[in-house]
Amino acid sequence: MPIDCEICSGSREDPAYPLIGESEFWIVKLAPNQSLLGRCVVATKRHVGDLADVTPAELMDFLEVVRRLEYAIRQSFSATMFNWSCYMNVAYRNDPPNPHVHWWLVPRYRQQVEVHGLTFKDPHFGHPYDHYRWQEVPPEMRNYLVREIGIRFGLADSY
Amino acid sequence: MPIDCEICSGSREDPAYPLIGESEFWIVKLAPNQSLLGRCVVATKRHVGDLADVTPAELMDFLEVVRRLEYAIRQSFSATMFNWSCYMNVAYRNDPPNPHVHWWLVPRYRQQVEVHGLTFKDPHFGHPYDHYRWQEVPPEMRNYLVREIGIRFGLADSY
Repeated sequence: MPIDCEICSGSREDPAYPLIGESEFWIVKLAPNQSLLGRCVVATKRHVGDLADVTPAELMDFLEVVRRLEYAIRQSFSATMFNWSCYMNVAYRNDPPNPHVHWWLVPRYRQQVEVHGLTFKDPHFGHPYDHYRWQEVPPEMRNYLVREIGIRFGLADSY
Repeated sequence: MPIDCEICSGSREDPAYPLIGESEFWIVKLAPNQSLLGRCVVATKRHVGDLADVTPAELMDFLEVVRRLEYAIRQSFSATMFNWSCYMNVAYRNDPPNPHVHWWLVPRYRQQVEVHGLTFKDPHFGHPYDHYRWQEVPPEMRNYLVREIGIRFGLADSY
């Protein structure tokens, strides 16, 4: 565990990235930016820097996470579909870089969603989302999102 | 094979998406937009609409494609790292949509690259790339790129 890896050194109690759930090889956290409701980050538990270096067992387990997490967010907020990406750009602002494999799961919505009085829109549905459109939500709302997604993620049948 | 799926109905001889190589379950083509040199699209041979519905065998084979293709593009053009994404937004401009799983592989470059007198820059290295920055290249250059990547993709050792 290199000490300069923010993912490896990130606490499970970090309120900015609350824990939604985990599998054998991956950990799922809610992202700070909730402009697209249910946005999560899914990181390897092991420090590995390139998608090409993920093991077959880790990738099989990732498929399980994809299935459970899409199910959970679709059930929770009626997400229409999902954008998955593995970029790791931020790590390359340093030279040498110390990347750690993680996926962004960004739910996309054909219709607007209202949750506890807050409205979430997806103005670029059908197009790439705007990385710089930012919407944080109050702590009690974050707790609610983690609970809603987490319960369904945990209950989703493996198949 | 639904007739309205552009990926299923795409010809292997389409000059806009020339064939780089294939594996048991995936097909690799050069993307029209070469603003980030070596940009490819990797699609399932089977019509499947959600990453969650990819089979374990397909995903294992995808890992093999990731390894061979990253190797090939790194060897060919000294790419620094790679952004992988599975979005399928365009399919959702129709309602009902008919998505087909495909990945964009977008190589990223810390340094500029010159190939056959053309210069390629990555002005947003370390940040999300601009989806709308577009650079096409002449047919002979496309042929060259396909050949360079394709040979190494085919030769890359499986591991």
